[in-house]
Amino acid sequence: MKIQLILGSKSDMPIAEKAKTILDQFSVDYDIAIASAHRTPDVVKDLVEHNDAGVFIGIAGLAAALPGAIASHTIKPVIGVPVSGKINLDSILSIVQMPPGIPVAAVGLDRGDNAALLAIEILSVKDKKLQEELKIYREQMRKKALGQS
Amino acid sequence: MKIQLILGSKSDMPIAEKAKTILDQFSVDYDIAIASAHRTPDVVKDLVEHNDAGVFIGIAGLAAALPGAIASHTIKPVIGVPVSGKINLDSILSIVQMPPGIPVAAVGLDRGDNAALLAIEILSVKDKKLQEELKIYREQMRKKALGQS
Amino acid sequence: MKIQLILGSKSDMPIAEKAKTILDQFSVDYDIAIASAHRTPDVVKDLVEHNDAGVFIGIAGLAAALPGAIASHTIKPVIGVPVSGKINLDSILSIVQMPPGIPVAAVGLDRGDNAALLAIEILSVKDKKLQEELKIYREQMRKKALGQS
Amino acid sequence: MKIQLILGSKSDMPIAEKAKTILDQFSVDYDIAIASAHRTPDVVKDLVEHNDAGVFIGIAGLAAALPGAIASHTIKPVIGVPVSGKINLDSILSIVQMPPGIPVAAVGLDRGDNAALLAIEILSVKDKKLQEELKIYREQMRKKALGQS
Amino acid sequence: MKIQLILGSKSDMPIAEKAKTILDQFSVDYDIAIASAHRTPDVVKDLVEHNDAGVFIGIAGLAAALPGAIASHTIKPVIGVPVSGKINLDSILSIVQMPPGIPVAAVGLDRGDNAALLAIEILSVKDKKLQEELKIYREQMRKKALGQS
Amino acid sequence: MKIQLILGSKSDMPIAEKAKTILDQFSVDYDIAIASAHRTPDVVKDLVEHNDAGVFIGIAGLAAALPGAIASHTIKPVIGVPVSGKINLDSILSIVQMPPGIPVAAVGLDRGDNAALLAIEILSVKDKKLQEELKIYREQMRKKALGQS
Amino acid sequence: MKIQLILGSKSDMPIAEKAKTILDQFSVDYDIAIASAHRTPDVVKDLVEHNDAGVFIGIAGLAAALPGAIASHTIKPVIGVPVSGKINLDSILSIVQMPPGIPVAAVGLDRGDNAALLAIEILSVKDKKLQEELKIYREQMRKKALGQS
Amino acid sequence: MKIQLILGSKSDMPIAEKAKTILDQFSVDYDIAIASAHRTPDVVKDLVEHNDAGVFIGIAGLAAALPGAIASHTIKPVIGVPVSGKINLDSILSIVQMPPGIPVAAVGLDRGDNAALLAIEILSVKDKKLQEELKIYREQMRKKALGQS
Repeated sequence: MKIQLILGSKSDMPIAEKAKTILDQFSVDYDIAIASAHRTPDVVKDLVEHNDAGVFIGIAGLAAALPGAIASHTIKPVIGVPVSGKINLDSILSIVQMPPGIPVAAVGLDRGDNAALLAIEILSVKDKKLQEELKIYREQMRKKALGQS
Repeated sequence: MKIQLILGSKSDMPIAEKAKTILDQFSVDYDIAIASAHRTPDVVKDLVEHNDAGVFIGIAGLAAALPGAIASHTIKPVIGVPVSGKINLDSILSIVQMPPGIPVAAVGLDRGDNAALLAIEILSVKDKKLQEELKIYREQMRKKALGQS
Repeated sequence: MKIQLILGSKSDMPIAEKAKTILDQFSVDYDIAIASAHRTPDVVKDLVEHNDAGVFIGIAGLAAALPGAIASHTIKPVIGVPVSGKINLDSILSIVQMPPGIPVAAVGLDRGDNAALLAIEILSVKDKKLQEELKIYREQMRKKALGQS
Repeated sequence: MKIQLILGSKSDMPIAEKAKTILDQFSVDYDIAIASAHRTPDVVKDLVEHNDAGVFIGIAGLAAALPGAIASHTIKPVIGVPVSGKINLDSILSIVQMPPGIPVAAVGLDRGDNAALLAIEILSVKDKKLQEELKIYREQMRKKALGQS
Repeated sequence: MKIQLILGSKSDMPIAEKAKTILDQFSVDYDIAIASAHRTPDVVKDLVEHNDAGVFIGIAGLAAALPGAIASHTIKPVIGVPVSGKINLDSILSIVQMPPGIPVAAVGLDRGDNAALLAIEILSVKDKKLQEELKIYREQMRKKALGQS
Repeated sequence: MKIQLILGSKSDMPIAEKAKTILDQFSVDYDIAIASAHRTPDVVKDLVEHNDAGVFIGIAGLAAALPGAIASHTIKPVIGVPVSGKINLDSILSIVQMPPGIPVAAVGLDRGDNAALLAIEILSVKDKKLQEELKIYREQMRKKALGQS
Repeated sequence: MKIQLILGSKSDMPIAEKAKTILDQFSVDYDIAIASAHRTPDVVKDLVEHNDAGVFIGIAGLAAALPGAIASHTIKPVIGVPVSGKINLDSILSIVQMPPGIPVAAVGLDRGDNAALLAIEILSVKDKKLQEELKIYREQMRKKALGQS
Repeated sequence: MKIQLILGSKSDMPIAEKAKTILDQFSVDYDIAIASAHRTPDVVKDLVEHNDAGVFIGIAGLAAALPGAIASHTIKPVIGVPVSGKINLDSILSIVQMPPGIPVAAVGLDRGDNAALLAIEILSVKDKKLQEELKIYREQMRKKALGQS
């Protein structure tokens, strides 16, 4: 099952790269597209509605409407990554403060990596093999944190 | 030429009422609709694309995506009114911090009245009669502020 | 598959009630427990490690460490609900700004309802029946928003 | 019909350049002046009162009083551009939070480009030709965003 | 020598009352006027330019431009009192963050009392009698704080 | 009549330099001392109590207690200059939000120049000559702003 | 060994009551005094310098200089409790952001209870009996949190 | 009696270095460990529970849960040092806003030095020799501040 990453702008690519590194490590299938909630709303809509991905990741800065726009077109889980800029509270609050009925799962500022891990956790809910891989990944992270690897 | 008000939720009606009071005073034509950027994005799109209004006013709280969503579907001027709540910076920044290319004209927190006045100012740019009415309105406001009326 | 709600304190129950209303509506199985990341860290650990839930929801205010503490003990998806108080940015930032490697899915301030919907979306990723129910729910929400029901 | 840009200080010129680039692209007539709400309030007043511009753009940082000062002297639409600095919330809130009766249309931090586009949108309300140019501009922006041009 | 209080709006009167209580206690001469930087900028200008007051106090909320507007028309000391509202940082930053060359002396949120005391301190710089009264006032405050009076 | 500048730390000297430039231009007498509200409270007290200055300027960053500490020892006007750092709201709020009875006149972040001008304005209240110099200074500033000098 | 509580104002007594409840429960000796860093700096100094308390607790709101002022007069541990008001970040940052060399131990907004517990923890460092009492207290808190008592 | 420093990540080492410089100067015994509240919660627990240190110092950024996690496993005093990043209010509020019952002593942003001094002050409560050293240190700091050494 695929993960679909959508970036609000080409300039968000460094944050997407953090996600890619994780997704490649887990050999999870994914696609990356650039589509803006404000400049190309129909592309966002088409991309989301005709998509067999299991989870969406929206990456955007400023008045980061993209993750919410994705969520408005699907009942699949949508993860939002606020991108840093001159204010930071703008993208965080624009993604976190979704109205009742249309949830978005916000991760931390510039945390493309955590968005990927959360997407994999979601895919693993009914996938024992992926769960085992996540446990191994975390054990490695643990060892690395302790200076054992 | 008409002004189209769009509210993200019924609960935003008290802010729309402030706009209505101004618009009625100027006998400017307007319509009010409720349509959510997140719950009914297609309604927002249809309402905006098939609309002969000259100016749009979007009123929304929290991750107030509505004004930006309206602007994504039109090249007409869009005014955004952030609605107050538990944080306030969320709706303000979600409306002010639009990305390059898709402007929204943000007014102050809960300022439905100023949104209406700004919309009338926009309509008056090539309408001498409306300009005169705005001058009279401001003169009355001035007298009221000075306790002369 | 069960959803496990954990509240940092009894005073967070009104936020959990919002989640319960949604979960009952979808007839999704769930448990509610009170366990504090700071007052009863071992209870949090035991509850999380010996739990067959598919998704966790942590609800907490102030320096809201609970969702992160849950996530530190599991590779299952963890949703965090910041609870409002005198500052609000404290619980939001404490939940959103997780370090790399241990994701938490933050929803909006006091949004127990969206946490429940996100949890159901996660469970539905490989569950066609639940997907259909989510589509019906959203269609009903849409109609309600349009005043059609 | 002309657009009048007013900068609070010479140091705001890079933000005005963003506006100029857009205005030149649309061949819209404009003037640029430097006048400070605090250092030369009479110049602001004269410039605004004896001006046949259809729209004003005020660009200022810190306690950015300029857009509001312009608006206090005219019933024409006034767009305010907050300029970034060490705090950023200062210029944003000083421009957004105008009192009832005197609206200012705030755009995002350093968004001279969006101020220009909003001004053109305002001038286009009763100008079919300008509307067509805005549609072409947006279509080009759309194609560029999609990597098609 | 007189102190001139200017309120941006009638609603700011409770803050002015705090100033009056102090000024009456010191038998310092003062005038109170309502004049808005945005609604009646010419009245602010006239009031400031034709005024023999030694010190000005401007009281305003929201995008509190009044103290800065007063300062733009005089080289006498201007004290600014930010008035509380839904955001508070708006009026504080609008008054504190004045650009170089035009100083305003900001006191705390709703601190009409401190504005009056500061104005009296300013008048006392070359007035031994007023200095003595300020010393007595402070001694009384000290005793009151210690529960001795 | 002298102006006494007090810096909380040597690292605040660049901000004091801005004040010196202004004070030298006006040939106003001044002294500069380094004394910390927290590291050398007795030096602050001695310096303030045995000082024939007419106005004090306190320059400090972080939990900028210095201007308030100066004000606690004198009934002369005290101007506070918040120094920028990693947060900025810390020094601003620590200086602005003084309790009732002990006023401090806050100027903008790093605005040593405005602190000096405000101090001169205060000294000029009963000094016609200094008033004339301030008017000349402002006229020069005005001409410079207009590019006339 | 005694704990000395100092309140910046009588209005802070409700926060001190939270501390008293804890201190009474542990039968730890304590004194309460009201002394303001700004209104009665000499009383703060005398109280701190002639005091055999082992730990100080300073409780204050707004530009909460009291804990820092206490710390400037002693090398004993000083705990600061920020008191809530219209801004809250003012008292928190004024207490947390102490300069190098003069530490203050900040606890949460209005957390008189935690200040007392922290003071007892400090006194218990070389007091086995007090350590045992803290362990019993925490065990009771744990049971209460779990609904077991 | 030992002081135990725990860092949430290797990247926090520069802040720990500030603490080490102070601790070495006082010849106080200390250990440094890296252990993450989120990546290695069991290591934090073991390190804290089997530790004869008198005081703990937790250093962490972002959603800085480490000091609170340490405090959840001990009744000894815990000092928290928020580490600076893109937001700063996140780590400060995550450490300051602890819930009732589990205190943490927060020091300023990146203030490893003050954490060390506070820890030494705590150890000195019943240690006359250490008190004398603190007095000498402060006297030296005082002289240095006055330029006397």
